[in-house]
Amino acid sequence: MKKSVAIDMDHVLADIEQQMIKWYADQYGVLVAKETLKGKAEQEAFPDKEKLRKLLFMPGFFRDTEVIEGAIDAVKKLIEDFEVYIVSAAMEFPQSLGEKKEWLTEHFPFISWKNIVFCGDKSIIDTDFMIDDHMKNLNYCKGRGMLFTASHNANIEYDVRVNNWKEACDYLYQNR
Amino acid sequence: MKKSVAIDMDHVLADIEQQMIKWYADQYGVLVAKETLKGKAEQEAFPDKEKLRKLLFMPGFFRDTEVIEGAIDAVKKLIEDFEVYIVSAAMEFPQSLGEKKEWLTEHFPFISWKNIVFCGDKSIIDTDFMIDDHMKNLNYCKGRGMLFTASHNANIEYDVRVNNWKEACDYLYQNR
Repeated sequence: MKKSVAIDMDHVLADIEQQMIKWYADQYGVLVAKETLKGKAEQEAFPDKEKLRKLLFMPGFFRDTEVIEGAIDAVKKLIEDFEVYIVSAAMEFPQSLGEKKEWLTEHFPFISWKNIVFCGDKSIIDTDFMIDDHMKNLNYCKGRGMLFTASHNANIEYDVRVNNWKEACDYLYQNR
Repeated sequence: MKKSVAIDMDHVLADIEQQMIKWYADQYGVLVAKETLKGKAEQEAFPDKEKLRKLLFMPGFFRDTEVIEGAIDAVKKLIEDFEVYIVSAAMEFPQSLGEKKEWLTEHFPFISWKNIVFCGDKSIIDTDFMIDDHMKNLNYCKGRGMLFTASHNANIEYDVRVNNWKEACDYLYQNR
């Protein structure tokens, strides 16, 4: 039987960091340098955390996010050998539900709707692997968690860290 | 630790059967009697299955569905003693995502967004109990499945059947 992998969206498939920088600049006229985000929680990394949070509720924010480098080819390969589920904690931002589904249909049309999950917390998700950028999700992971590097988690220690999609695939194929 | 319960939406919280009858009559001018649905798969119970399926993609179909009798009080009680998750296989009908979230906010405002899951198949959902009207979901259930009676499943045999929300609560409290 194929092993199962839960793949997060924000910061793992979708370049939310870049989108935050872009929208923060467009909306508030302040350009935050990517280098300054390293090692800071997302809400602490921008000048005004309330303003940052507002972006996440704005129509369009999630819809035109760029894809993380290597993600499309990696997921296309992984679905041949694993049961791949896209699992996004989207429920906090209701307007994102439709946008995230459209985004997946555009960039990952080869993923069946059967394998997409939008949830609140991820504690009831049971897969052999979970690729995520947040410890709050990995801490409740029932299988093997894999911390996907993002600026905000740069200083966190965790057993299995993958810095990019090549490393993520290498780890999965070595451990399937 | 509280035991966890996954609760389906369609036919369990939301009276989709009644909604199908109403919308089929409104859209196509054919009133199907509720009694004739008994023991038939949903797609076979209406005169034209393609027309029925079209309803599920129409804006508004899910939004103003009535609540199943007793569901609100039951869920309000259950969240005191169980970890309750609403788990709906909504991903096949993307326009339903926003509508279902709004519907839950209106009728079940006491359920946190953290406890809502919209998915495709339910095979990666791991809870102690799962209340659902479809065997395709219960067959992959990792915990104790509970078949919630709907016309379409009237002739199916299953270990644990609950005919209404009183029976569902009785079973859960006897087995927690």
